[in-house]
Amino acid sequence: MNKKGFASDNNSGIHPYILAAIEDANKYHAVAYGDDDFTQMAKQKFKQHFGNDAEVFFVFNGTAANVLSLKAATRHYNAVICSELAHINVDECGAPERFTGCKLLTCPTTNGKITVSEIEKHLNGIGFQHHAQPKIISISQPDELGTVYSPDEITLIAQFAHENNMLLHIDGARLANAAASLGIEFKKFTKDAGVDVLSFGGTKNGMMYGEAVVFLNPELSENFMYTRKQAMQLASKMRFIAAQFIAYLNDNKCIETAQHSNKMAKLLEAKIKDIPQIKITQKVESNAVFAIIPPEIYNDLQKEYFFYLWDEKRYEARWMCSFDTTEDDINKFVELIKKLIKNS
Amino acid sequence: MNKKGFASDNNSGIHPYILAAIEDANKYHAVAYGDDDFTQMAKQKFKQHFGNDAEVFFVFNGTAANVLSLKAATRHYNAVICSELAHINVDECGAPERFTGCKLLTCPTTNGKITVSEIEKHLNGIGFQHHAQPKIISISQPDELGTVYSPDEITLIAQFAHENNMLLHIDGARLANAAASLGIEFKKFTKDAGVDVLSFGGTKNGMMYGEAVVFLNPELSENFMYTRKQAMQLASKMRFIAAQFIAYLNDNKCIETAQHSNKMAKLLEAKIKDIPQIKITQKVESNAVFAIIPPEIYNDLQKEYFFYLWDEKRYEARWMCSFDTTEDDINKFVELIKKLIKNS
Amino acid sequence: MNKKGFASDNNSGIHPYILAAIEDANKYHAVAYGDDDFTQMAKQKFKQHFGNDAEVFFVFNGTAANVLSLKAATRHYNAVICSELAHINVDECGAPERFTGCKLLTCPTTNGKITVSEIEKHLNGIGFQHHAQPKIISISQPDELGTVYSPDEITLIAQFAHENNMLLHIDGARLANAAASLGIEFKKFTKDAGVDVLSFGGTKNGMMYGEAVVFLNPELSENFMYTRKQAMQLASKMRFIAAQFIAYLNDNKCIETAQHSNKMAKLLEAKIKDIPQIKITQKVESNAVFAIIPPEIYNDLQKEYFFYLWDEKRYEARWMCSFDTTEDDINKFVELIKKLIKNS
Amino acid sequence: MNKKGFASDNNSGIHPYILAAIEDANKYHAVAYGDDDFTQMAKQKFKQHFGNDAEVFFVFNGTAANVLSLKAATRHYNAVICSELAHINVDECGAPERFTGCKLLTCPTTNGKITVSEIEKHLNGIGFQHHAQPKIISISQPDELGTVYSPDEITLIAQFAHENNMLLHIDGARLANAAASLGIEFKKFTKDAGVDVLSFGGTKNGMMYGEAVVFLNPELSENFMYTRKQAMQLASKMRFIAAQFIAYLNDNKCIETAQHSNKMAKLLEAKIKDIPQIKITQKVESNAVFAIIPPEIYNDLQKEYFFYLWDEKRYEARWMCSFDTTEDDINKFVELIKKLIKNS
Repeated sequence: MNKKGFASDNNSGIHPYILAAIEDANKYHAVAYGDDDFTQMAKQKFKQHFGNDAEVFFVFNGTAANVLSLKAATRHYNAVICSELAHINVDECGAPERFTGCKLLTCPTTNGKITVSEIEKHLNGIGFQHHAQPKIISISQPDELGTVYSPDEITLIAQFAHENNMLLHIDGARLANAAASLGIEFKKFTKDAGVDVLSFGGTKNGMMYGEAVVFLNPELSENFMYTRKQAMQLASKMRFIAAQFIAYLNDNKCIETAQHSNKMAKLLEAKIKDIPQIKITQKVESNAVFAIIPPEIYNDLQKEYFFYLWDEKRYEARWMCSFDTTEDDINKFVELIKKLIKNS
Repeated sequence: MNKKGFASDNNSGIHPYILAAIEDANKYHAVAYGDDDFTQMAKQKFKQHFGNDAEVFFVFNGTAANVLSLKAATRHYNAVICSELAHINVDECGAPERFTGCKLLTCPTTNGKITVSEIEKHLNGIGFQHHAQPKIISISQPDELGTVYSPDEITLIAQFAHENNMLLHIDGARLANAAASLGIEFKKFTKDAGVDVLSFGGTKNGMMYGEAVVFLNPELSENFMYTRKQAMQLASKMRFIAAQFIAYLNDNKCIETAQHSNKMAKLLEAKIKDIPQIKITQKVESNAVFAIIPPEIYNDLQKEYFFYLWDEKRYEARWMCSFDTTEDDINKFVELIKKLIKNS
Repeated sequence: MNKKGFASDNNSGIHPYILAAIEDANKYHAVAYGDDDFTQMAKQKFKQHFGNDAEVFFVFNGTAANVLSLKAATRHYNAVICSELAHINVDECGAPERFTGCKLLTCPTTNGKITVSEIEKHLNGIGFQHHAQPKIISISQPDELGTVYSPDEITLIAQFAHENNMLLHIDGARLANAAASLGIEFKKFTKDAGVDVLSFGGTKNGMMYGEAVVFLNPELSENFMYTRKQAMQLASKMRFIAAQFIAYLNDNKCIETAQHSNKMAKLLEAKIKDIPQIKITQKVESNAVFAIIPPEIYNDLQKEYFFYLWDEKRYEARWMCSFDTTEDDINKFVELIKKLIKNS
Repeated sequence: MNKKGFASDNNSGIHPYILAAIEDANKYHAVAYGDDDFTQMAKQKFKQHFGNDAEVFFVFNGTAANVLSLKAATRHYNAVICSELAHINVDECGAPERFTGCKLLTCPTTNGKITVSEIEKHLNGIGFQHHAQPKIISISQPDELGTVYSPDEITLIAQFAHENNMLLHIDGARLANAAASLGIEFKKFTKDAGVDVLSFGGTKNGMMYGEAVVFLNPELSENFMYTRKQAMQLASKMRFIAAQFIAYLNDNKCIETAQHSNKMAKLLEAKIKDIPQIKITQKVESNAVFAIIPPEIYNDLQKEYFFYLWDEKRYEARWMCSFDTTEDDINKFVELIKKLIKNS
């Protein structure tokens, strides 16, 4: 019914090793609401990856991980600085403002990343009672255009944040894809770079549901359990989120699957970059390919492979590769593109 | 590690038929965020049970189903009338007030149910600008003490609500247990009784996660999709919640499992009601047994079977039966109680 | 058009000395939003009365003073413990819950005051993530039934609060009436008794508008200026609130006017307590008299003197005396009552 | 102590005719919270100016008038479209987002006004559940750069709003200055132009405090009294706000004072536009003059006349004239500027 496509890595299903982990956890009774052994083990796994200080809480989805990370780091009169393209700014239906009370102050970007020079323009109202007070910077890694911050870039932003009495948050909905892309451990570009709190997602990389709020600055986690509950994000049968994360973080599993989807994106890039009618618009550093296509092929391509236009005006498509994308999928997709261009 | 007990029906795992449904849905790609065929089929299933008018939205858990039901029915200056024991009043860490802005006005209860005579005491400030304006009544079915409202009792409350420009919500975290107890279809004591909106849960009856907000008064559902998203309750891989509900509502499956746990509760009641040192405090009409135990046996019983005291001062225990509770489980539990009493 | 009555001390106008202070402040330009000399002087006046540590912020009204006091002392997942009759619970249209996110937990009362034995019943869910966490106790002084806490009573509640990691707030909408009643300085039953934050009102005692949030525990005031602004409570021409408070706190002025209205209430009590058909229901310790009247006289009395029934079912009236109530006003009122009873 | 300057029209005091109105209203008792004759008369005055349909509610200040206007017109998942310079976006410490839950979507502007072509760029996510849904456009009249929308400009925006299922709000903190500038009645560029709801201020034009929310689309006012109370904006002695507005709207008084301050701004413009070292940056259409000054004179000028830099980087000053600004004030100010430039 629903054939594989490139619309979203959310459209893929559950990776078999994740499903197996769920099945394994489905034995006996386990105390609900996180007081179970799976949850303890999963937290331990996170400490192995992010340092022993890390305090970890599971929530249902990425919106919640982002919003609750920001809530834990702010008071209601604060502001959050982020990219104008940030998922928290564009695609959460105002959830960050609604739950945190904070204002979002945005920085322009052309490659998806933001820099200190843009961030600091928002600091002019510090101490002025009429202005929401900036307290945290939020970046996405990889960002919304699929590019990846280097550890140095993150370190610079973190240092600037801390020098200005602010904190740094990473929206890591696809953090494994960033780690795979950089070829380094999670800790190197998060904890070691000065990140304070992190949304760690796995759903776009083969998990079924569940996301983690990872406090690298553990002071921020004080009383977070009440925030989570009040935010309607406390899972009763939490063992099943925990079991997924145990498997996900085990034996480099999440990196392997992310390497695969990144590799497929590079392959897709390689195969279309020689088509003169198509223009790739962003560096392919994770599992996304952004490309401007000829308007004439748009309708026919959509009919076969549903996907989203990132920029409708210039027919810029966003194609995402998943853990289950195959070379064959890409070949067929590219062949169709070529055929449609030829016939157009 | 975690043996079966009577602490909570949330402590049990996933019923095998639910897990099978998840596995079956794990094929191909499916459009995320609810635009998939499973979600459409699941909504259709709900219409079969609750009437063709019913508008259904899936969320992650019961807290969300309750809070978002109430939000859809109110404005921020309204009040919600409920039992003083209501889960929304006691066990949601203030989530209803935080997200809806509404005040909760409570009615005293001894058997878990509330009546019109208590509800109407809260209507004295209608039209008075200093008072939060009551707009919806929320009852739990079964209620927090395990008793079950008859269709007539619900009808009376619904009529009173509508005569007073109010609405009626049911917290149906265990609605299948109520249906099993009453021996009638869902529709008879919800839609047909005048209920406007419903939280429909399955997690306590064998599902893994996911709850439904069922609008029986479909006008209330207008724009609800934005409320759900802003409330951080829009699941990306929604097909896996939908697939669970399809199975749950198919072929009377949810009623069968609820009948079983209800039956186990009756068995537990039957076996302990003759122990003179134990006093059963509420009618056993669903899968809960409330009983006062001798303080002397408390610690030893806890050691073997973790459970919660509903009323710590008088050692009133709440024991819940699950879809996987067996007669053998009950026999062993009762035998231990008897042994501990004898030795005390 | 509107003759003087006993409905509310809010119905009286501006005391002439307050109006004179406003007129005096209406010279030259003054920097808006509180950066003016009047505001500095007014803050200094508060320090004279409440101790040099006190941090003072002006807001528009009592609702705001209460809600913002509580907001400064809590996080969104906390609970506030108060009397079931507390103005914050009954007469603020849900403003405390809406702005703070906190749950209100109420204590029953017969004389308007609450005690530690009732307060402590709400501490059973400390550390339990499903429960809003009590963080502050709020009492009204005088309370809603016109009775006055002794310094010792306040001290006991403050000690209990602090021993349990909580704070104490006073709703002091009529604090001058309490001070006049007790015959001691403000500081003795606030700062010295352990109160952490205070709503200090004057409008019911001759001011035009404006209320003060007085932080006796100055740590709570950190960043409060942003909370005030975000709460829509930052006055532009703040000098006119400040000027009123300077006059109000000068030379015992506020105490004198409160002594007068208290004295008038005692006089009213004295004159009606011998009427056998009327039953005074509360001790008269400030400027309020609560009394049950014969239902037969209700309509005719209302026609001449509009007032509110505190308890409609038993015809319990609340009569408030103001700074401008005269012996003659009381004589005429009592005479009418007597006449109506006689004719009934 | 505080000499007259050009920093803000909020720094001026109370116009004598306003103070006289307050003094006149200070007789007898008046029912509190708006159930008094002054409030009824004031509402009637507004109906004379804005049409008989207008529903009017008084609040304390401009922040509240704006935020509550927007709240009445939206649900929590909506968005508000406004200028990037809008007071609601820049100078309310996040109050609009905090109280309404809505996201603010901003349009760039060079002259302070926004146009349909920029507004419509924000409509691309209509019906998309991930996006906050635009529901109201808010413009300031005069805008934050002192320029004034023509009735036709407002009509175009209102038509666009209504064609797209949106509403139009005016932040009229200085609406009398706009009316004086346009030389037409309030109704012509508000009700008749299609405006739905209006914040009507007078404090910057001689009032002491108080602002009005004027619903020209009266359906929006349903239940607004509860919103006002919950928002901490219900004044107890409301007659004193009402009395100010009665005087303000009587006999063209507010227009006269606004004409004066507008005229003073034109005079200031006329006197400085020939100074070659100073560049006036915006059309002078109300009581504001924006001008770039030589950095060398900045400190000395500030010493004598405190004022704010609108753009610190280019030394662009904002000078505001008030109802009490005199030709002499302007002459002395301009002379000082000339002297400082000469000496620099």
